[in-house]
Amino acid sequence: MNKLTTPSIQDLSAQHEQDAKDLTRILPASRKVYVQGSRPDLRVPFREISLTDTPTGLGGEVNPAIMVYDTSGVYTDPAQDIDLNKGLPHIRETWIAERDDSERLDTLSSRFGQERLKDIRTADIRFAHIQKPRRAKSGRNVTQMHYARQGIITPEMEYIAIRENQRQQQGIDIRQHAGQNFGAQNLREITPEFVREEVAAGRAIIPANINHPEIEPMIIGRNFLVKINANIGNSALGSSIDEEVAKMTWATRWGADTIMDLSTGKNIHETREWIIRNSPVPIGTVPIYQALEKVDGVAEDLSWEIFRDTLIEQAEQGVDYFTIHAGVLLRYVPTTANRLTGIVSRGGSIMAQWCLAHHQENFLYTHFDDICDIMKAYDVSFSLGDGLRPGCIQDANDEAQFSELRTLGELTHRAWEHDVQVMIEGPGHVPMHMIKENMDLQLEVCQEAPFYTLGPLTTDIAPGYDHITSAIGAAMIGWYGTAMLCYVTPKEHLGLPNKKDVKDGIITYKIAAHAADLAKGHPGAQVRDNALSKARFEFRWQDQFNLSLDPDTARSMHDETMPKEAHKSAHFCSMCGPKFCSMKITQNVREYAQNQANTAADSVAEDDISVGLESMKNAYHAQGQKLYHKV
Amino acid sequence: MNKLTTPSIQDLSAQHEQDAKDLTRILPASRKVYVQGSRPDLRVPFREISLTDTPTGLGGEVNPAIMVYDTSGVYTDPAQDIDLNKGLPHIRETWIAERDDSERLDTLSSRFGQERLKDIRTADIRFAHIQKPRRAKSGRNVTQMHYARQGIITPEMEYIAIRENQRQQQGIDIRQHAGQNFGAQNLREITPEFVREEVAAGRAIIPANINHPEIEPMIIGRNFLVKINANIGNSALGSSIDEEVAKMTWATRWGADTIMDLSTGKNIHETREWIIRNSPVPIGTVPIYQALEKVDGVAEDLSWEIFRDTLIEQAEQGVDYFTIHAGVLLRYVPTTANRLTGIVSRGGSIMAQWCLAHHQENFLYTHFDDICDIMKAYDVSFSLGDGLRPGCIQDANDEAQFSELRTLGELTHRAWEHDVQVMIEGPGHVPMHMIKENMDLQLEVCQEAPFYTLGPLTTDIAPGYDHITSAIGAAMIGWYGTAMLCYVTPKEHLGLPNKKDVKDGIITYKIAAHAADLAKGHPGAQVRDNALSKARFEFRWQDQFNLSLDPDTARSMHDETMPKEAHKSAHFCSMCGPKFCSMKITQNVREYAQNQANTAADSVAEDDISVGLESMKNAYHAQGQKLYHKV
Repeated sequence: MNKLTTPSIQDLSAQHEQDAKDLTRILPASRKVYVQGSRPDLRVPFREISLTDTPTGLGGEVNPAIMVYDTSGVYTDPAQDIDLNKGLPHIRETWIAERDDSERLDTLSSRFGQERLKDIRTADIRFAHIQKPRRAKSGRNVTQMHYARQGIITPEMEYIAIRENQRQQQGIDIRQHAGQNFGAQNLREITPEFVREEVAAGRAIIPANINHPEIEPMIIGRNFLVKINANIGNSALGSSIDEEVAKMTWATRWGADTIMDLSTGKNIHETREWIIRNSPVPIGTVPIYQALEKVDGVAEDLSWEIFRDTLIEQAEQGVDYFTIHAGVLLRYVPTTANRLTGIVSRGGSIMAQWCLAHHQENFLYTHFDDICDIMKAYDVSFSLGDGLRPGCIQDANDEAQFSELRTLGELTHRAWEHDVQVMIEGPGHVPMHMIKENMDLQLEVCQEAPFYTLGPLTTDIAPGYDHITSAIGAAMIGWYGTAMLCYVTPKEHLGLPNKKDVKDGIITYKIAAHAADLAKGHPGAQVRDNALSKARFEFRWQDQFNLSLDPDTARSMHDETMPKEAHKSAHFCSMCGPKFCSMKITQNVREYAQNQANTAADSVAEDDISVGLESMKNAYHAQGQKLYHKV
Repeated sequence: MNKLTTPSIQDLSAQHEQDAKDLTRILPASRKVYVQGSRPDLRVPFREISLTDTPTGLGGEVNPAIMVYDTSGVYTDPAQDIDLNKGLPHIRETWIAERDDSERLDTLSSRFGQERLKDIRTADIRFAHIQKPRRAKSGRNVTQMHYARQGIITPEMEYIAIRENQRQQQGIDIRQHAGQNFGAQNLREITPEFVREEVAAGRAIIPANINHPEIEPMIIGRNFLVKINANIGNSALGSSIDEEVAKMTWATRWGADTIMDLSTGKNIHETREWIIRNSPVPIGTVPIYQALEKVDGVAEDLSWEIFRDTLIEQAEQGVDYFTIHAGVLLRYVPTTANRLTGIVSRGGSIMAQWCLAHHQENFLYTHFDDICDIMKAYDVSFSLGDGLRPGCIQDANDEAQFSELRTLGELTHRAWEHDVQVMIEGPGHVPMHMIKENMDLQLEVCQEAPFYTLGPLTTDIAPGYDHITSAIGAAMIGWYGTAMLCYVTPKEHLGLPNKKDVKDGIITYKIAAHAADLAKGHPGAQVRDNALSKARFEFRWQDQFNLSLDPDTARSMHDETMPKEAHKSAHFCSMCGPKFCSMKITQNVREYAQNQANTAADSVAEDDISVGLESMKNAYHAQGQKLYHKV
């Protein structure tokens, strides 16, 4: 385990200087803009991509700037000083305090948290500005779902409405296909009231722990933009705290909507504190991993008391959602015996092991109401874990998997009785034709609680490319109604992702999520596609790069074939070269055909085109059109 | 344009030594095996991947070797001498001669071919062993479709039956999901007679020009394995002949079933000769590209005579299929005027330009029967081009695209009247929810003639990652019934693919094609998934790498986290580390649960598990199971 080295952004150690640059560099032609809500401290960030005009020869239009959803936080705001030592500004602090339903505790409530705070061995890696935790006042419930059900529109809800809605407010090309959304709602305009209704109904969640005031609020639900999660976390095999913080900021820079910290190595507690304090997005964890560390990795020694202390420890640090494998019931375990790959979920196998060793029912299930009481005191959302998800194509959609899903449906209702927010985790490895069955069953038994899936991977034969095998399944299940897609990196099954793997996973999943938004016909989703395609058609190369999910890669690939700056304004494609460009030809055809549109339309209509054609011929030669332009 | 440098594999120039090594290196744990057909000269190649035994602690099973479809040709057969100067062995020569319906001509029939043969400027780049071309005897038809309709089973058909069938003959784990195939036929066993029936009905094609005796026969149809095509070819912006030959062999090594040579630069004729003579897979071209070069890139100057001479020139070199944009009708051109990106197909825009300039109907359409007469004299298959395919999401499934598709359906029937083989090209850029409409309409209007699609890309916003945006659409349309997927590389829209891009495109499309086979429930398709997943579950790391589509990448990614050789037999995953492996836990659960299976089953059945549980507890502790094993 490395020591934490010089965490301050102003003074990062040599090997992390690049991280610091990467972290704060503004993307080309982009600037951070804020849209003001109903109160001065409610400012919703976007990235505005400015575009060049259409070349005069092609009409000289002015192309409006495009605003895109921005998960990168203040790291990309030049007006802000970034200091990882101090953490991010607490934009939600006042909102939380104003509700006057929570109080600051004098000390941490978990025994483990208190021990670590005093532990001199971890002093040199401890975050310096640990705040006293907040907790609901006695008898109060501080969940966004509770407020929603009281009819209260919170600042978080208004923030989200502005954030989800912005793209549709732009007075630009929103020609878009109708889409097919399998019962989701496509509102033209997303209002704060609509956000409230969705949260109240349990169809969407706002992961927002009152101890994580740094987050820029976001929502997960199938009637909103499809979100993606990135997993980070070290393991016994290494990676240091600063590496994990760098991975988190790197992931959010490229578009991660939430981050799960799956650390299983030492110093999990300290690593998590650093990540939360510097994260602009909600953080999820799997508390059973840390609980297991506390009993030296012996599953049989786990107990409700140890787990409970871990939940409180993490809730007071500010974790926004917990994966809880409460659906792995004792009677389901034997049904996995004939599987090709048994139980592949870490949490699932731990609980299965515990159940068999004690021949007792899963304590996460028997103590579910106790867990809810903790969740609602901090507003931690459930991510009900699929501990029995299939680990290979052959095991997809089997009895074990679907039995657990039905139990998760039952638990969803129990959580809702506590006004605790819930999403449901899904598979795994599933061939394409069996994906929709997962979505349909989840919608039915979980009453439209948000589905949060890992992939699914559509084949097992491509280790090293599982970001792709899974993006196919992820795009499809996103289209069917999954609200958040957990990314898979190229290293899945092989090793721990490095920064390149994280970025590859993120971009791949932004593609899957966006393809799903397009297929659902989510309002405004097609704005960016249209703008990029128009730029492509008009040879505005720089705009094409700048509008892409990864401008750096698009530009560098173009440079490989045509390095010269002049080529970036070339009126031909690098695919074909100057003499042979279909785009160029098409422009001639198009300008010409447009001149003749009316004539042509009539003649086509009466299916007698000779008249139109004669005039076409003359017009064509009058224009003196040449096919190719020398550059 | 570079000169061709030292084409002999024994003596490749420095910069191509690596190509030579890459080209002939045997994949790990693999060997080339041949399955003998009904005659000694009918030997069908496969790659056999040998596996290690299951570790004794986990049962010690013997795991049978897996045979996989092998497109790499004799390059991966150590028993063969490879000399690019001489080209590949003519395995079909006797089969073609025996039919006695074709004759060798004394000279090339095309004027252009004759000129190039005499041209001293191209002497130093000319292939050394150009054979005299074969052509059907007067009045004869040499297409595989013609034979099939006469009831003749050709050696090519028997070869294909063995090749497509092999995986199903293996007496190994073929647990597999039923699949959903939208009306395709999933035969348990593919017989030579079934191949004949499919070709006779036009539901499948065997691209096999009598002047390309080097190919290892393959079939394209939705009742067979989904195939992939790789595009190569230089452009005015460069790349040399030997680079293109290297790309072709590189693409087939990783799994390209066919290759399209889309060269548009100089010396197209000589480049093509080198590629065909050294290609073990069918080669396709777009003859209009070369015809346009012959008129200095001025589309208006194209004529039937020039095009006809080009068809004959290429047919006598051995091109196996031609993309012909005969569906771009004059009256359809104006319907593209209001598109966001107009006409993006190069061939389509050339013909549109020609039609407008001459105000005449597309000469490829008016001369379609003349073209068929040429095709059947050499057995060149049609790939009817989609010249009006959409170039962006917004333009998907519009009037222009579907009007052309209906015309391609009409032309399919006209080709079939000549017993000429036909496949149909498809889009393009299509959002997920509009993909199936393409497949359904194609099946209807083209009467199940094989569909051959480019992607489709499911979003426009990720240049640099269009292998992924398109693999999503490709996997889906392959599932719906597309017979061959044309790959897209990361360089799509940006530049010419290099070797890395070609490999990325190939592996990505092997994933899409295989995911489609699984979803269709193609018999035997799941064998490799099951074998790899079993290896994964049993920590047989080397087998897991060797069974993957890209063993080199899988192994190197694993090495990044766990470089030591010892780790390759580690009983834990690199994701989790030695203390924390769900696979390991699962094995304990599984062994245990299996010991108790009967008891457990009963108790579950009677929903009273207490009895089973008590014995479970005892058995568990008797076993003295420890959760974690030190390595």
